[in-house]
Amino acid sequence: MAAVEALQRLVTALGKLPGVGRRSAERMAMRLAVGRRDLIDELLASLAFVQKSVTGCAKCGSPTLVDENPCRLCTSPGREDGLLCVVEEPADIATIERSGGFRGRYHALMGTLSPPKGQGPADLRVQSLVARVREEGISEVVLALNTDVEGDATAAFLEEALRGEPVKVSRLAFGLPAGSGIRYSDPVTLERAFKGRM
Amino acid sequence: MAAVEALQRLVTALGKLPGVGRRSAERMAMRLAVGRRDLIDELLASLAFVQKSVTGCAKCGSPTLVDENPCRLCTSPGREDGLLCVVEEPADIATIERSGGFRGRYHALMGTLSPPKGQGPADLRVQSLVARVREEGISEVVLALNTDVEGDATAAFLEEALRGEPVKVSRLAFGLPAGSGIRYSDPVTLERAFKGRM
Repeated sequence: MAAVEALQRLVTALGKLPGVGRRSAERMAMRLAVGRRDLIDELLASLAFVQKSVTGCAKCGSPTLVDENPCRLCTSPGREDGLLCVVEEPADIATIERSGGFRGRYHALMGTLSPPKGQGPADLRVQSLVARVREEGISEVVLALNTDVEGDATAAFLEEALRGEPVKVSRLAFGLPAGSGIRYSDPVTLERAFKGRM
Repeated sequence: MAAVEALQRLVTALGKLPGVGRRSAERMAMRLAVGRRDLIDELLASLAFVQKSVTGCAKCGSPTLVDENPCRLCTSPGREDGLLCVVEEPADIATIERSGGFRGRYHALMGTLSPPKGQGPADLRVQSLVARVREEGISEVVLALNTDVEGDATAAFLEEALRGEPVKVSRLAFGLPAGSGIRYSDPVTLERAFKGRM
């Protein structure tokens, strides 16, 4: 066995992290194996710690402490209960919270529909979304998905999945981002901004 | 302690991997904590395996098995001994080997001079380079560094460090890459291609 083969398992594992391609994974494995042995220790310790103390919230899907499930956002009394915001990734929740534009509850899908990545409906938290809409008496689901092809396809799929439920399904407004100039806008954004003019 | 704090150590560790910024590290930690628990096991196992079985080659710095040090390339009898190729990262060695353009020995610096990244001469394998030039009777050092600002600065530094040693220091030729068109070339590449015209 050569060293390259010994590194292969690590390259494969690192390549499964979001946003890491084969080349990046190889570079990381190399660096870990020869340049940064200390970082191997640090990763082993922090991964073991997360494995032991953190889990996914049974409601929204965000990371939460194993002895605090459902998470704080899902149990906080100060939030509007009938309003549910659907996001792709748990990280999006923190971004929306910072904006202060939403005071309801959250639900993370853990991805989008993406045939190239081999992600279908079964890989997303759709069943638990429909269950929550029924059980928690949700009156409006706001889809806060990315405005790319995958986000659009996922939004269409969710609208279909929730058809028949007594719930309003909305999507975040399309338009010009704050602080941008007309001259720097792409044609699709401009077309949508004209369509949605207020 | 909130879940975010429990993830912080992992975010910090992941952020030290090459090419991973704060945002990416957060996304990876989130995904590991809630979407891909199985990947935590896989990373733990493969990191522990690399820690146990792989080390940096005492000569070139590439990953090698702990019981195969110096590595196969450094001990292979079929290579030219007086010729030493200096690269930034061990991964560059595989790229050069695939090209078939070089039959000497290698030496990986483990980075470049980069004040923004806090990398100075002490972080690079420069001392061992000078030692090898003396001990192995190297007659020519070929600098196969990237053609960016950091690569240029590192090349200048190495030329200075090797001044006084009875060794020729060369750098890979600058010019047009194979299969490219004049019209797609940037001004710096074109200027260098004119200067180095053959």
